[in-house]
Amino acid sequence: MKHPALSALGQRATEPPISWLMHTALSRPKLISLAAGFTDNPSLPLAETRALLHGLLRSPQSGRPALQYGSTAGDPILRELTAAHVLKLDAKAVGAMECWRNGASKSSLQNSITPLSHSPARMLISGGSQQLLYLVTEALCDEGDMVLVEDPTYFVYLGIVQNRGLRARGVRLQRDGLDLAHLESVLQSLKRRGELPRVKLLYLVSYLQNPTGVTTGFEKKRAILKLLQAFEGAAGHPIYLLEDAAYRELRFSGGDVPSALAVRGAAERVIYTGTFSKPFATGARVGFGILPGPLFATVKHIKGNHDFGTANLLQQLYVRALKSGIYETHVARLQMRYAQKARVMRLALERHFPPAVEWWGPEGGLYFWARLPGRLASGVKSKVFQTALKNDVLYVPGGICYADDPTRRKPDHEMRISFGNASESDIREGIRRLGAVLRKLV
Amino acid sequence: MKHPALSALGQRATEPPISWLMHTALSRPKLISLAAGFTDNPSLPLAETRALLHGLLRSPQSGRPALQYGSTAGDPILRELTAAHVLKLDAKAVGAMECWRNGASKSSLQNSITPLSHSPARMLISGGSQQLLYLVTEALCDEGDMVLVEDPTYFVYLGIVQNRGLRARGVRLQRDGLDLAHLESVLQSLKRRGELPRVKLLYLVSYLQNPTGVTTGFEKKRAILKLLQAFEGAAGHPIYLLEDAAYRELRFSGGDVPSALAVRGAAERVIYTGTFSKPFATGARVGFGILPGPLFATVKHIKGNHDFGTANLLQQLYVRALKSGIYETHVARLQMRYAQKARVMRLALERHFPPAVEWWGPEGGLYFWARLPGRLASGVKSKVFQTALKNDVLYVPGGICYADDPTRRKPDHEMRISFGNASESDIREGIRRLGAVLRKLV
Repeated sequence: MKHPALSALGQRATEPPISWLMHTALSRPKLISLAAGFTDNPSLPLAETRALLHGLLRSPQSGRPALQYGSTAGDPILRELTAAHVLKLDAKAVGAMECWRNGASKSSLQNSITPLSHSPARMLISGGSQQLLYLVTEALCDEGDMVLVEDPTYFVYLGIVQNRGLRARGVRLQRDGLDLAHLESVLQSLKRRGELPRVKLLYLVSYLQNPTGVTTGFEKKRAILKLLQAFEGAAGHPIYLLEDAAYRELRFSGGDVPSALAVRGAAERVIYTGTFSKPFATGARVGFGILPGPLFATVKHIKGNHDFGTANLLQQLYVRALKSGIYETHVARLQMRYAQKARVMRLALERHFPPAVEWWGPEGGLYFWARLPGRLASGVKSKVFQTALKNDVLYVPGGICYADDPTRRKPDHEMRISFGNASESDIREGIRRLGAVLRKLV
Repeated sequence: MKHPALSALGQRATEPPISWLMHTALSRPKLISLAAGFTDNPSLPLAETRALLHGLLRSPQSGRPALQYGSTAGDPILRELTAAHVLKLDAKAVGAMECWRNGASKSSLQNSITPLSHSPARMLISGGSQQLLYLVTEALCDEGDMVLVEDPTYFVYLGIVQNRGLRARGVRLQRDGLDLAHLESVLQSLKRRGELPRVKLLYLVSYLQNPTGVTTGFEKKRAILKLLQAFEGAAGHPIYLLEDAAYRELRFSGGDVPSALAVRGAAERVIYTGTFSKPFATGARVGFGILPGPLFATVKHIKGNHDFGTANLLQQLYVRALKSGIYETHVARLQMRYAQKARVMRLALERHFPPAVEWWGPEGGLYFWARLPGRLASGVKSKVFQTALKNDVLYVPGGICYADDPTRRKPDHEMRISFGNASESDIREGIRRLGAVLRKLV
């Protein structure tokens, strides 16, 4: 027991593993960090943000509402713009997919995107999409409840799981998304053990996943929803798909995939979370969620107790960025920037990593994912990590991206390598250093 | 049961009573709302904020960190500035108090303000002080635990209590702050029933309280801490004083009071929360908390799961506002503005309210508090409220500011009347209308 007055949640609260990595990075000025999930510094939209805020605060008519309290659900205009934004992404992705398929069942899929599934009335604005992940989990899961997560998954979500006393089951991830056969076998096994009533949601980082860069395709999403629904009877309640689309707009190659909201009839089972800050400015944090009707009110009420609404100044900034087209222009520029940085990292990996190390580059997002041969350990106590640190280069050990799942051994031979924040020359030098370490130890 | 998949917390989440009032206000354009806790619109610092943000975003050196992620605890410079800010308020308040007392025990009190109690290392920056109230309560209280609150208190905190399944005990409020004798008797009674181990904190809105405008004096704070400490043995753990100073800087008459942090030896039992947004711009929400060492890390870790840090752009705005003196200048101007609006309301109340209605004006904050004679009901279903609504004037019924405390009947004959957001002419006309209703019904 840490402290006798703490709640059970307070007792469980621990330093997240990534903190140690970040402290380490700060304390060694020569260290090249390929660990942080920070975004690219030189491309941050300073001039654009300055101009948008200047315009916003120039007149009392627009400036006063921006500096005043708003409502818990968020600014009505931003809710509309955001709903239209996601609808546009989905319509475009569906259109591209249909085109590629050459017309197969075109009308049925196009029609599945309804105003209902992308309605502004279901749209909740938040202080970053992280807040929505927290709120949704709070609304659905009691201590001891279970969530299904990708193996591996976003480690800050695992922090929520651990802190709230939830259990997690990992579902294998393939290069093209979640492993459907494994999902079914996990659900079957939970059903046999009578544990399905404790399963509330599947958390899926469906686009350019953190940490692996994997995208789960549309047909897989449809199959996932079908599978979850098939087990609802045994669960006694809906099993939600919590679709985290944080990296969706950071795609720089390949085509966008429609969200699970575009699956016909799925709107009442899909919670879609997204963010404006990662593709624009991570210091101006605004995220959003599209929630099924019954959940929307509940999550909004809980948010009322957290903060009764996200800072209006930031919301109005995005209203203007979206309306003016500045957001879209910036995102396009940022995609090119990350494409270039990913190219630099890919070339360096090809040059410096030993062939026995398997790695793959993403079509977007911020991360490469590498797997060491022969189950060579990559964790913070491993020889690989310690030698890398001695050589002033840092990565995120893959192990921290795996849930505590007692039904399998936690893998510890992978690494997340980020090109988000490091400069091109640091990417080259960092990979050179890491490659030298690996060539010696593999 | 609302929905079979919801957690217990999700099941409990309900529309807060104030929402209905706000919807009502919006749906009746002629209605004068003296209900909302919104701040004064014309005095919002548009030009100042514009200039600060322009300066911030003009150079990459200052602009990039503002648009990038930061750390969970908050920007180190803002943490320092904020700690110094509260220290300055406390030192000034202690000095004034000593001066007034003509030297009595001067040195001992001055010395009680130590770098320890106001250390930046104990400072956590948040997205408004509301978030800190949530985090602290989450860190300390399990379902079924008990918090002590003022009778009446800030109703959004009661929303947290209800939503998290906590119990509350009301402690009477006097014109000069918490009723010490009643606090002792509540603690005694809880001790007799063996319930003290469930009591984790006393939530005290110590400055210009929402809803009553009451300020709890320094000697009372000292006595409160002493009392809480006396019962810690029976509780088996610390009982914290959660001091909410949200309205502290909105004082326009009388002298500031030192915070409970200035009580000698109290730093390990006081959680002090404050905000920059209410005295500056409520649309740019940044709050803060000063926490005892063992709690600081726990609350920071939980915040890591909520949002891993408050939007840097807003934090940097306040860094510049504080450094430049623009914050201080604006606060002084705002105090004069509210003094004037409170004067207008006072004159209108003197003119229009029947003598049988007891009311008192505050020395700061945003609210007057009125008590109807003969326990005449003021709740939303009462004749008073309904007639007021028919006459297009809205107030906050006092009843929603009282906790669900089974040991006493909930008072329902008071009203919170706000001069924060309404214009001077609306204040006059609103009080005229409300006075006419009361003269008819009292």
